[in-house]
Amino acid sequence: MSDLIPPYHHPDFSTPELTSAPVVSTEASPADGVVPRNFHGTSNYPEYVHLGGGRWVLAPESRMDSVLVLDGDQLEVVEARRVRKGQRVVVGRTENGEEGIYVHTTGFEPEGQEATDKFAFRTRGTRETPFSRSYDELYQVLRHDRDHGHIVWVLGPAVAFDKDSRAAMQGLIENGYCHALLAGNALATHDLEGGYFRTGLGQNIYSQELQPLGHYNHLDILNEVRRAGSISAAIEQLQIRDGIIYACEKQQVPYVLAGSIRDDGPLPEVIADVYRSQDTMRAHARKATVVMALATQLHSIAFGNMVPSYRVEADGSVRPVFFYIVDMTEFSADKLANRGSAQAQAILTNVQDFMVNLWNNLKDS
Amino acid sequence: MSDLIPPYHHPDFSTPELTSAPVVSTEASPADGVVPRNFHGTSNYPEYVHLGGGRWVLAPESRMDSVLVLDGDQLEVVEARRVRKGQRVVVGRTENGEEGIYVHTTGFEPEGQEATDKFAFRTRGTRETPFSRSYDELYQVLRHDRDHGHIVWVLGPAVAFDKDSRAAMQGLIENGYCHALLAGNALATHDLEGGYFRTGLGQNIYSQELQPLGHYNHLDILNEVRRAGSISAAIEQLQIRDGIIYACEKQQVPYVLAGSIRDDGPLPEVIADVYRSQDTMRAHARKATVVMALATQLHSIAFGNMVPSYRVEADGSVRPVFFYIVDMTEFSADKLANRGSAQAQAILTNVQDFMVNLWNNLKDS
Amino acid sequence: MSDLIPPYHHPDFSTPELTSAPVVSTEASPADGVVPRNFHGTSNYPEYVHLGGGRWVLAPESRMDSVLVLDGDQLEVVEARRVRKGQRVVVGRTENGEEGIYVHTTGFEPEGQEATDKFAFRTRGTRETPFSRSYDELYQVLRHDRDHGHIVWVLGPAVAFDKDSRAAMQGLIENGYCHALLAGNALATHDLEGGYFRTGLGQNIYSQELQPLGHYNHLDILNEVRRAGSISAAIEQLQIRDGIIYACEKQQVPYVLAGSIRDDGPLPEVIADVYRSQDTMRAHARKATVVMALATQLHSIAFGNMVPSYRVEADGSVRPVFFYIVDMTEFSADKLANRGSAQAQAILTNVQDFMVNLWNNLKDS
Amino acid sequence: MSDLIPPYHHPDFSTPELTSAPVVSTEASPADGVVPRNFHGTSNYPEYVHLGGGRWVLAPESRMDSVLVLDGDQLEVVEARRVRKGQRVVVGRTENGEEGIYVHTTGFEPEGQEATDKFAFRTRGTRETPFSRSYDELYQVLRHDRDHGHIVWVLGPAVAFDKDSRAAMQGLIENGYCHALLAGNALATHDLEGGYFRTGLGQNIYSQELQPLGHYNHLDILNEVRRAGSISAAIEQLQIRDGIIYACEKQQVPYVLAGSIRDDGPLPEVIADVYRSQDTMRAHARKATVVMALATQLHSIAFGNMVPSYRVEADGSVRPVFFYIVDMTEFSADKLANRGSAQAQAILTNVQDFMVNLWNNLKDS
Repeated sequence: MSDLIPPYHHPDFSTPELTSAPVVSTEASPADGVVPRNFHGTSNYPEYVHLGGGRWVLAPESRMDSVLVLDGDQLEVVEARRVRKGQRVVVGRTENGEEGIYVHTTGFEPEGQEATDKFAFRTRGTRETPFSRSYDELYQVLRHDRDHGHIVWVLGPAVAFDKDSRAAMQGLIENGYCHALLAGNALATHDLEGGYFRTGLGQNIYSQELQPLGHYNHLDILNEVRRAGSISAAIEQLQIRDGIIYACEKQQVPYVLAGSIRDDGPLPEVIADVYRSQDTMRAHARKATVVMALATQLHSIAFGNMVPSYRVEADGSVRPVFFYIVDMTEFSADKLANRGSAQAQAILTNVQDFMVNLWNNLKDS
Repeated sequence: MSDLIPPYHHPDFSTPELTSAPVVSTEASPADGVVPRNFHGTSNYPEYVHLGGGRWVLAPESRMDSVLVLDGDQLEVVEARRVRKGQRVVVGRTENGEEGIYVHTTGFEPEGQEATDKFAFRTRGTRETPFSRSYDELYQVLRHDRDHGHIVWVLGPAVAFDKDSRAAMQGLIENGYCHALLAGNALATHDLEGGYFRTGLGQNIYSQELQPLGHYNHLDILNEVRRAGSISAAIEQLQIRDGIIYACEKQQVPYVLAGSIRDDGPLPEVIADVYRSQDTMRAHARKATVVMALATQLHSIAFGNMVPSYRVEADGSVRPVFFYIVDMTEFSADKLANRGSAQAQAILTNVQDFMVNLWNNLKDS
Repeated sequence: MSDLIPPYHHPDFSTPELTSAPVVSTEASPADGVVPRNFHGTSNYPEYVHLGGGRWVLAPESRMDSVLVLDGDQLEVVEARRVRKGQRVVVGRTENGEEGIYVHTTGFEPEGQEATDKFAFRTRGTRETPFSRSYDELYQVLRHDRDHGHIVWVLGPAVAFDKDSRAAMQGLIENGYCHALLAGNALATHDLEGGYFRTGLGQNIYSQELQPLGHYNHLDILNEVRRAGSISAAIEQLQIRDGIIYACEKQQVPYVLAGSIRDDGPLPEVIADVYRSQDTMRAHARKATVVMALATQLHSIAFGNMVPSYRVEADGSVRPVFFYIVDMTEFSADKLANRGSAQAQAILTNVQDFMVNLWNNLKDS
Repeated sequence: MSDLIPPYHHPDFSTPELTSAPVVSTEASPADGVVPRNFHGTSNYPEYVHLGGGRWVLAPESRMDSVLVLDGDQLEVVEARRVRKGQRVVVGRTENGEEGIYVHTTGFEPEGQEATDKFAFRTRGTRETPFSRSYDELYQVLRHDRDHGHIVWVLGPAVAFDKDSRAAMQGLIENGYCHALLAGNALATHDLEGGYFRTGLGQNIYSQELQPLGHYNHLDILNEVRRAGSISAAIEQLQIRDGIIYACEKQQVPYVLAGSIRDDGPLPEVIADVYRSQDTMRAHARKATVVMALATQLHSIAFGNMVPSYRVEADGSVRPVFFYIVDMTEFSADKLANRGSAQAQAILTNVQDFMVNLWNNLKDS
């Protein structure tokens, strides 16, 4: 594993430019949820502020498009909507120390750089990019971080539509490969429908057959869970014995179901307020060492916005956060990059196969 | 226009099967937000219930995956989550009168049916399907319903990213072609950024150039609107003079901004609770005669779930609701169909061109 | 396996319509490569012609968009470009016996038909369709037809770009799962580059790294094979020891490399004349019992046009030909259907994962 | 227009590195169609070789993945398959003069370079990229090069499937905006079917209706043209009066129909040998100043391989060749870039709309 986790280099703060950098400035927020005009917006890279006397402090974690609130020596990354009137917000939009702020984009990169050809094929990642090593690295990362990290899964509903991929996800949860699961009402509802009726939206998850009156399965499972009052009570009463949500409940893996305007039902645990959903998701973003974002553009980009590219461990060491996105289209991967999550690694395929491959490899280890 | 709106045929309730149909049954809901086990789930087709003595009543409007609540002779289509304990809910899952319920899927179809070849090319709609007539019909529909209908636009953010398509949408609003606009925080924010900075997420909406520090434009516009307290106050203070939201404000066209977990900011008008968003959107679904759903899978499917395939006019006549979905992929159109909105007509293209084409044709009429 | 191969029902020629059907008519072709104006065009379904006295003859194989040439009692399906002046061509465009021609589309369907709901989710196949059973059936089909059928692979270049999928294809060939391979210059060139340089178009097939001057690998392998004079000589001289083409050569599995206007080189074995390529491919189409078409729209549709939906075995029994298409987009699968190959079964995924899954399952059997 | 055509800067050959560069080396080709092992492979950039005494010669045109043949002072870019035994081929794989070869990638770039932000949204082009200026520039380019350049269109069949886009292409040809048209058998066949039957593969090009027995239209038009012996004779005899091919014939615009393994028919003018097709297409590549590649991956990449990024005018001045690719997916645009045509500018949309937009703008100028 040590090969997989590249060492982190802090910036060299002894250069003339940085030794002469001013102390960072702050301004008071003028109102709740409003920040000073010249606020510094955070990226997902490690960012440092100069507190004076050559003392640069690294933000303990980060989030895209938020602000730095300074309270004494305490530096916190806060969404603008959560800033309270009067809090001191770091101001300045330079990134190389000119205003006491340093954004460090190359901390995990090895020294040295190869010359580049003037002409090359295949400079862009697509579905034709070879993914063998991506898988091999992923297997190692997951095996390591099962015990030494925090693996967060962000799942679109398609994972629950197929018998084998649903079983693979269940296996991963039961074997410790999932420390938190983020999804929407649909994933959980389809999964519970699969557990009770063997269908997803009325289509058999194995045979593809559309069941007669099958669309009622979707509505009935919602009604039954609402009648039971909670997912855990419903699993008990309906004697559901397999699936993704079942495994989370049994293994006590926390899951967050963020509501959306597409929801039927919803299930009782679904969070109706999207900003409360964000806050709940971000609690996991702060802990994540690996993110597996599968077949959901909405949740992937939402969580991508929240996840720093690094994590400061308890012993003060800094490691990267791995972010994998699995999707069928270049567009989704590009969109994640275009919203700032440039470090996300795309594997372009159907999540059904992805899950089966993953589980085939990890189940015996 | 009369050619475009096909006449509606009520079912023939004088057939032996239907004259002998029983009166519809109801059961009381056992708890708030929970419905009886054998509830009848609604489709987006016209549905009738038999109240006795051969009196069949058409639901005044509909919504996919909801239930029928009967209060005396009053028939209402209600989401299960909104049903209150004790309300009488129609039960039964047959569709041809066996339990006093009739689902009418062919009301707008002409009589007679052609023989089908055993072999044919091009039975599935794709990007290669010719759309010339779709456009011509659409122009006619929009011209007619500008004055005699209720045109609802459901917009993804891409519409605001391009100067010409943004101007086209502004033109359509200013010329009466939009009676309500449904979108998310992103569309409105990008549009206001376009109005103030000429960029969308920092990229010039005309030249494609990425502005230095351009990603701040996105954050700054959010901060400024939050500081102003409302979109309308911000438009005033920032002297924004064009764009989609500007046009809505000026023309007093209602718009609904439904929150999502991807939101930055958000703008003050964004609705945080997704079920309140649904309720607000559905108020427009009840009035819609044309739906234009552009470049947003989330909002298109959400609204598709809410929109009936028909509308009962004030004079009791029944007309179809036209539902156009414009997207780049067969997958999005198929997904809408797979979620029950089979009547949606897909035009597979980039919304930028779609908007420009539309406006070129409608602007002089 | 017997479960997998549905029994075939000949049409019932004893119905009044068919007993009174006229003898089929023919006309002489007016010139080489030109057919009579009222020619009958073939589909990929079983087609019968009435030779008189109630004797209906099934075409021994078929091909889309060709004609039926009758020579005495001998019925042959011939591309119009290959018809010679004076040959007798079946005329008539009806399909139910009216002119002595019967197109049989339901020979493999079970009797009886279920009632259809008026409303259903998920009527269209997409990437979200569950493929578990498709895989399970495919495993069985391939195991059976390895010994009792003729499995034809149609490969796009992406199969050779990834180390694991390339090795999986090699394994399948070496274990008897491939009776013929159809591809273009690119697949073979990339595969040989992989064998000699471990790259595909200069990108390492495992690590994804772009090699310095890597685009020369592509050109060099072409030059070396051309210098050697043949692929087999080059494999010998360059000591290539793995890969798809290597396995074909070693196992004496025939392969057809059809030229295209995109070709560099080309390799010496590539066929320059596209109609000679068609003829060579069709020789395999006549024998195929399973077609695996992966990640190539051009070759998939080309071969789809040539493959009948049925095969008449030596003992006169009729079985279906299974046609699997593996691609990333609904568009490709739809396009194949839109060009007449409606029986093709789509598995929407990345071929890399598809190959790895397949081989994981088949390698130990 | 002068704004649109950036000035070209030759390299500065007076730098110490280049003044000390050796004379370029050549080796004799060992056999027909085989080149020396250390051959220099060309890109689509301007490339210079040092002939001695500080005299650097620019290749008069170029082609990706070919070689430089030197005959006295004459430098020619030749595909390896066309090199004859004994011809002198430039050898060396360095690009900065080390072996007397200089590849010039920045000749059209303005001096100076902006600093880059560490963090930015939207660095990758997608369907959400604004295309307004791309269109505006394209209009100007086409207006200018109608009279002063050579505009080559590379068309996929979808252009002929829709009435309006087919008419737009006809209009462009008739108004001088097309100096050569490259396509396959399908485009021409569908277009002629449209002219004779008003269908494309049996589907009405306006109403989308599938005609009864419509698939015969495709076969019948092929048979009729083959009967007539040539496209021009068929247009005469069948009294075809509109369409793309009709316009080419009437305006005497040359067109190349390259055969492929998917072809039915084919039409008499289709070239069966793919390398002869390449040679014929390349004759147009040498003259092209603008390439419009629409909705065809095969032909776009094939032609992209042949087109230099620059053209030397009669007066010795050097100008860029504009290459536009119009397609629905990021994958196609990325693939073109991954095959070396990095300068191609993508417009991601449906070609139907693209054509209509283009023609609406150009028709009155």
